[in-house]
Amino acid sequence: MSDAVSPLAQPFPAIPPIAGVTLRVARAGYKDCGRCDLTYVELAEGTAVAGVFTRNVCCSSEVELGRANVAQGRARALVVNAGNSNAFTGYRGREAVDAIMAQVAAHLGCATEQVFVSSTGVIGVPLPKDKAEAGVRAALVTEPCDWEEAANTIGTTDTFAKGALATAIVDSRKVTLGAIIKGSGMIAPDMATMLGYVFTDCAVAPVFLQELLSAANTRTFSCITVDSDTSTSDTVLAFATGKAGNAVLTGFDSPGADAFAAALNDVCMQLAHLVVRDGEGAQKFIAVQVTGAVSDKSARTVGLAVANSPLVKTAIAGEDANWGRVVMAVGKAGEPADRDKLSIGFGGAWAARDGLPLADYDEAPVAAHLKGREVEIQVDLGLGEGRATVWTCDLTHGYISINADYRS
Amino acid sequence: MSDAVSPLAQPFPAIPPIAGVTLRVARAGYKDCGRCDLTYVELAEGTAVAGVFTRNVCCSSEVELGRANVAQGRARALVVNAGNSNAFTGYRGREAVDAIMAQVAAHLGCATEQVFVSSTGVIGVPLPKDKAEAGVRAALVTEPCDWEEAANTIGTTDTFAKGALATAIVDSRKVTLGAIIKGSGMIAPDMATMLGYVFTDCAVAPVFLQELLSAANTRTFSCITVDSDTSTSDTVLAFATGKAGNAVLTGFDSPGADAFAAALNDVCMQLAHLVVRDGEGAQKFIAVQVTGAVSDKSARTVGLAVANSPLVKTAIAGEDANWGRVVMAVGKAGEPADRDKLSIGFGGAWAARDGLPLADYDEAPVAAHLKGREVEIQVDLGLGEGRATVWTCDLTHGYISINADYRS
Repeated sequence: MSDAVSPLAQPFPAIPPIAGVTLRVARAGYKDCGRCDLTYVELAEGTAVAGVFTRNVCCSSEVELGRANVAQGRARALVVNAGNSNAFTGYRGREAVDAIMAQVAAHLGCATEQVFVSSTGVIGVPLPKDKAEAGVRAALVTEPCDWEEAANTIGTTDTFAKGALATAIVDSRKVTLGAIIKGSGMIAPDMATMLGYVFTDCAVAPVFLQELLSAANTRTFSCITVDSDTSTSDTVLAFATGKAGNAVLTGFDSPGADAFAAALNDVCMQLAHLVVRDGEGAQKFIAVQVTGAVSDKSARTVGLAVANSPLVKTAIAGEDANWGRVVMAVGKAGEPADRDKLSIGFGGAWAARDGLPLADYDEAPVAAHLKGREVEIQVDLGLGEGRATVWTCDLTHGYISINADYRS
Repeated sequence: MSDAVSPLAQPFPAIPPIAGVTLRVARAGYKDCGRCDLTYVELAEGTAVAGVFTRNVCCSSEVELGRANVAQGRARALVVNAGNSNAFTGYRGREAVDAIMAQVAAHLGCATEQVFVSSTGVIGVPLPKDKAEAGVRAALVTEPCDWEEAANTIGTTDTFAKGALATAIVDSRKVTLGAIIKGSGMIAPDMATMLGYVFTDCAVAPVFLQELLSAANTRTFSCITVDSDTSTSDTVLAFATGKAGNAVLTGFDSPGADAFAAALNDVCMQLAHLVVRDGEGAQKFIAVQVTGAVSDKSARTVGLAVANSPLVKTAIAGEDANWGRVVMAVGKAGEPADRDKLSIGFGGAWAARDGLPLADYDEAPVAAHLKGREVEIQVDLGLGEGRATVWTCDLTHGYISINADYRS
C-alpha cells in the first residue's frame, strides 16, 4: 500500500463474517516490503462460483485456468498473490499456478479445479514456486483475519483498502454480501490489475450466479476506466457458500432472486467506484451520464469515449468547463450522433443544447461544480432512449509522476 | 506560435515557388495576438483537388462543405482561418463559410464550390463574418508570401512551422510537391486540429489524385497519434495545378504515376511526422513497428493500441524499457494475437521472444536507445505477413500542463 492516500478514498465498511468463508493472510515474500502478500480464502463445501475475466488476449495462466474452471461451478478455495502478476511467463508461470492448486486441493481433499488462483504485480517474471509453496503452507495454519486485512493484502500500489457490503432478504432469510477489490494503482514496472471478489452466504446455483455476475459486470466494472489500458489479469469472482439456508436461487422465478441481484449489483458498483477513486493521480471522481442514444450499448461506447479522452480528463483536472472537448469525444466515438441534436452539460446545467452554445449560459454554477471532488458530465444525444453512466477520474500530473518519473 | 519550440522540431525546408500556386497572408483579427491569421492560396484554373477529412461526426461546416465540394474535382482557392475552428456553431458558422466562399468566388469569377475553406482554433464560437470578410479582402490585394510564412499563419499553438518538399520525374518533366501542415499544439479551450495542404504543379486527374491521396493517408496521417483524440476539423487537401506540363496522370498506367505517387506519399509522411514532433509536451518521437500480424490493417490497429496506451507512453517518457506494458497494449487491441508467439523489442533488440522474457536479455543497449530523442518499439505477432508502423510521442508533464493547468 502506498503512503499517500487518494483524496477520494472512502472508509472500509464494517463487513461481518460470512458463514462458509474463512480469510487468512501470509507472507510469501514476492516483494521485499515485509508485509503479507498472499491471501487464502477457504470456502465451505458446495460453494457456487462465477467469474468474469479480462478480454486481454495476452492474459495470464491464472486467468486462463480461472475461466476454464469456473465452468464446473464449484469452489473450495481462493489464493491471491500480490507483487507478481505471473503474466507473460509461459510454461514456468503455468507450473507455479498448477503447483498452488495441487497443494491446496491436497490439503482440502477437493478437486484441483475447485481452487482459484489470482496474481497481480510485475509482469514477465514467473511466480517463484518455492515462495508460493511456503506462503500457502503458512496461510493454511495461521489464524483467520478480517476483511480489511485481506483487502490490504491483495493490494499492490493501491492507496487504501477497498471493500463493499450489501444485504438482502431472500426466502425470508437475510443474506450478506461482502466484497473486496484491488486495482488502479500502478507504478513502473507494474501493470494495472483489477482483482475483485464477492462472497455471500446466499445459496445460488452456479449458472444463475454467473448470469447475475455477468449482468452486474456490464453495468459496473465494464463502465469504469482510469486510463483505457486493459490489464492482462483483471478478474472478478463471486462465491456463494449457501450457508444462509435459503432455498437455492436458480433463476429470477426463485423467491428473493431480484433482491439478491440488486444486492450483487450494489456491491459490484461500490467496488467499481472504489477502483476509480484510487485511480492513479486522481483528484476528481467523474460520472459521464449519457442519454438519448440509439441504444444502451451505444450510450456506453460514447460514455467511454468521453471518459477515456485525455483532453476531457485534463480539462476536468483544470476545472475547465470545456464542453468543446466533450463534443469532440462524442464525435470520435463512432456511434450514431447528430451534431445539431447534441447537448452537453456539467453538474446538471446545460452549456450547449441542440448543437448550439447556450445564449444565456451562466458559467458560475458550472465553475462551482467543477471545483468539487465529484464531477458530472451530461451528454444528451437527442436520438433515442439509450442511456449509460461511465465513471472515471481526471488526468493529472500525479498520473505522469506515478508512471513516468520512477524507473523500474 | 508558441515561444517554447519542441525539442523534436525540424528546420523548414526550402520549398521553391510552384507554378499555379500563389500564397498570401493577412490579419483577420480572430485572436488578439497581432499576427497574421488568415491564409489565402490562389490556384490556377483547372487545378485538380482531392481531400481526406476527419471522421468525427461532430465535424465543422468547413469539413462538411469540403467533403461535398471535393467531389467535383476542381479548386481555384483555399482560405484557412486560424484562431477559431467554427465547429459546433450551427447555422451561424455555416453562414460565415458560405460568405467567404461567395466573396472569393466573386473575385475570381469561379464557382463557389471551387473555393475551399478550413478553420482551426476555439470551438463553439461562430466565425465572425465581418472579420473574415475584411481579412479576405486584405489578403486578395496583399503581396504574395513564401511557404514558411504561410505555414506560420495556419498554425495556432504549434511551436514551429512545418513544411515538406518532394520532387519526381513525370513524363520527362520534373514536378514539385510543396506542402504545409499545422497541428498537435493545443491550449484550453482550443482543440487539436490538423490541417495539411499539398500543392504540386503536376497534372493529375482529380479522381486519380483522390485515389493517391487516400492511399497515402492510410499509411501516413492515419498512422500517427498524439493523444487518441480525433479533431472535429482534421483536413488534408491536395491541389495539382498541372503547370509542369506533363501529360495528365489518370491512373497507374500513366508514365510517371508511380514516381508521383511515391513523392506524394513522401510529403504526406514528412508532414505526418512533423505533427508528431510538435505533439503536446513531446520529448521523444516514437515509431511502433508491428510485424507478423494477420493483415496490414490488423497490424495498424495493434500499433495504434500501443501508441495510444498512456502506460506505454509514460514508460517511454521515463526511459523505462517496460515491455510488459507493450504486451498489455497488444492484448487489449482486440486483434488476433497469440501470447506465446509474441515478441517485443526496443531499438532492434528483443526483450521478449515467443512469449517469454529473453534469458540473456542485455538491458544496456536498450537503455541507451531509450535515452535518445527517437525511440523504436518492435512488436512481432508471429502470425502472418501483416505489417504497419505507427508514430507517436511520449506522454509527459508537458501534456498535462498544456491541457490542464491553464484555464480557458
